[in-house]
Amino acid sequence: MADKCFQSLPGFRDFTPRDCAVRNYLFSVWRDVAHRYGFSEYEAPIVESTELYLKKTGGELATQLFRFEDQGGRDITLRPELTASLARIVGANQRDFPKPLKWFEIGPCFRYEKPQKGRGREFIQFNADIIGEASSGADAELIAMAIDTMLALGFGENDFVIRASDRESWLSFCTQHDISDPSEFLPLVDRLEKLKPEVLEEQLGTFNVTRQQVDDFVNNPENASPAFKEIRENLNARGLGQYLELDLTIVRGLAYYTGAVFEIFDTKKSMRAVAGGGRYDGLLSTLSNGSADLPATGFAMGDMVIQNFIDATPGAKLEMEAWMARNPPCEIYLVIADESKRNDALGVIAQLRTSGLSVDYPMTQLNVGKQFKKAEQSGARFALVIGSEFPEMQLKNLSSRSEQTIDNTSNFTETIQALLDAPDGPLIA
Amino acid sequence: MADKCFQSLPGFRDFTPRDCAVRNYLFSVWRDVAHRYGFSEYEAPIVESTELYLKKTGGELATQLFRFEDQGGRDITLRPELTASLARIVGANQRDFPKPLKWFEIGPCFRYEKPQKGRGREFIQFNADIIGEASSGADAELIAMAIDTMLALGFGENDFVIRASDRESWLSFCTQHDISDPSEFLPLVDRLEKLKPEVLEEQLGTFNVTRQQVDDFVNNPENASPAFKEIRENLNARGLGQYLELDLTIVRGLAYYTGAVFEIFDTKKSMRAVAGGGRYDGLLSTLSNGSADLPATGFAMGDMVIQNFIDATPGAKLEMEAWMARNPPCEIYLVIADESKRNDALGVIAQLRTSGLSVDYPMTQLNVGKQFKKAEQSGARFALVIGSEFPEMQLKNLSSRSEQTIDNTSNFTETIQALLDAPDGPLIA
Repeated sequence: MADKCFQSLPGFRDFTPRDCAVRNYLFSVWRDVAHRYGFSEYEAPIVESTELYLKKTGGELATQLFRFEDQGGRDITLRPELTASLARIVGANQRDFPKPLKWFEIGPCFRYEKPQKGRGREFIQFNADIIGEASSGADAELIAMAIDTMLALGFGENDFVIRASDRESWLSFCTQHDISDPSEFLPLVDRLEKLKPEVLEEQLGTFNVTRQQVDDFVNNPENASPAFKEIRENLNARGLGQYLELDLTIVRGLAYYTGAVFEIFDTKKSMRAVAGGGRYDGLLSTLSNGSADLPATGFAMGDMVIQNFIDATPGAKLEMEAWMARNPPCEIYLVIADESKRNDALGVIAQLRTSGLSVDYPMTQLNVGKQFKKAEQSGARFALVIGSEFPEMQLKNLSSRSEQTIDNTSNFTETIQALLDAPDGPLIA
Repeated sequence: MADKCFQSLPGFRDFTPRDCAVRNYLFSVWRDVAHRYGFSEYEAPIVESTELYLKKTGGELATQLFRFEDQGGRDITLRPELTASLARIVGANQRDFPKPLKWFEIGPCFRYEKPQKGRGREFIQFNADIIGEASSGADAELIAMAIDTMLALGFGENDFVIRASDRESWLSFCTQHDISDPSEFLPLVDRLEKLKPEVLEEQLGTFNVTRQQVDDFVNNPENASPAFKEIRENLNARGLGQYLELDLTIVRGLAYYTGAVFEIFDTKKSMRAVAGGGRYDGLLSTLSNGSADLPATGFAMGDMVIQNFIDATPGAKLEMEAWMARNPPCEIYLVIADESKRNDALGVIAQLRTSGLSVDYPMTQLNVGKQFKKAEQSGARFALVIGSEFPEMQLKNLSSRSEQTIDNTSNFTETIQALLDAPDGPLIA
């Protein structure tokens, strides 16, 4: 009983400080890259009217909704993704914003799925969308940002690749093979690797197409669409072309994609795609009943899959740990060696904090040995010791074990800041 | 119909980029102050088992829950507050963490209330708690952090005050007046100002107490508890004593508070309290069925009330706007004056962004006049113009209208960074 009451619901996560620091690292990288690319952050409600989601997709997503009736009898849903809310917000405010919009969002989404590695019922998504720009230049900008996100996370050329295609290529294929309804054929392309060969062959047969014809089409780079070629040239100009690979088998599962589509893959293929996106020119119009008929392209990355990928990639893990080291929970632990000096210590703490430093200290009397233990546990690099000699203080470097005297002069906070910014000095023992 | 589909649910907010920047400003200040005070960030699930909340409070909160059954038949609730989750997480992990814990959280909470100014059905709370420290030193540390939060938001001594009391004072009063069950008497103190005088007098009568006796008690500073006096001395030592005021009418509505309690008030009293908190030594034990019997003190601040307070306070508003100016959505807008140089421009953009700068540009061909209009709209301080003279580029300061030539040399990004960091030069027209 006591045990049960400590558990979060299945598929929901607690973020203790260490987990939350990992999350904050992702947030920091995502925000930094989005900022460098000139994207503005927005946020939508966690809860929306259910009709917003039923309109968009149907299919698998509709069966995975956290959907319920509120106290006012409304049919409401915990958002399973952001695009529907984005369309709603852009539809409501589009006259206020010059196009194109470059917007990003970071926040939780909810799906009632079987919890497993890399998949929870509450997960965090990074969403970036460019709205109101139909040219392939927008697709290239978005894919470049996806690549730079991976680079900023410490992944290298050998770790990941962007596989991209364009639904337009398959529309040509459909025309060539007299397939009248591409929307029925494309889901089959999405499952080329997933279906059993005989089932695939049979289903292709209903369109009078053979596996060989599909393979020949997929394996011929000449079938890349003009948009794909423009995207490649654009990325080459940025020095990012080596991360892009044509893969005509990528069509993305959802029906609303209309143009260039892409997925980021772990090159060891040990995991599923870590992010994906594409052009969805008709969706905003559908979701807004025609009021916001704007071309759009977007991508999303979830926190759980990318965290697993970081954990499995030494370079990315090092990058994360370097960030953690630059952002310790505490910089200075103040040791009160003489309890009668507590009020003086509180004054020093207030000054250090006002100068921007992170300071912890024992809130009640504690022997000095225990205080140094707390100082070690706090993650602080320095202990500042205040004792009977105050206003003279001792600043101890907890890793190099060196120490020096600091005077409580008007600019002592600057002195300490400078020492914090400097690398560790020689060991004094 | 189209209109309806653009609306968020009543009491839920869309954060367009301007609103999201305000939210991010609050997040930035909250995180910065918490960091200076040595607090570590945690996060809990948005959804919890309903029993977690029913256990804690009952009362008003229980009628305001977004409560529903999930697809697996679980009785679940969108969290109305964080303390219950905090208790659950600490209970589950307490052996992993040296005490005291200083933890903070920033995230959405949900209550089914009538939406009104300063009150929504989804709102964001800043929660800070100290767990495992029973001394008044922890209360003082928490109240000091609350004060520094207000100061960091740009509020001054004339704008706000912390009114604090201690339930212990009222326990003495109850003993003096033979009130056997203080838990029935304290809610009356909480409503001293809210009840009609005759109703109050009648209800006090059931405890054999007169309004005069209550007023005499409240107006006598000698009734401050020892803990309150220690907190005052502690804050004085930090130079923060002037923000603290004894107010024995503050007891806080919720039943679980046990010691020092406080609220931050707008000194013009035009609004309700902007934040509040207090000591709740028994709650963790209750919520964890006795497994985590730790003393605790905490406070919470919601985003909606504090935003209204900022808007109504010139100093705080200036502080927020200064932050916005330091964090523009975009720093440089790249103008492509000669479309044949687009690939060169993309290379320059990639270099600028890699150096950490925020850059936007037209993703498709656009005449130069329109590009300068976009540059103005972007909020960028500089436009970098690439034309037929490339690798020579023109850097225009969009506010001072000055311009200078930049060469596409190896360190041109540093040159531009230095110009961005410098104040605007003389007007050249």
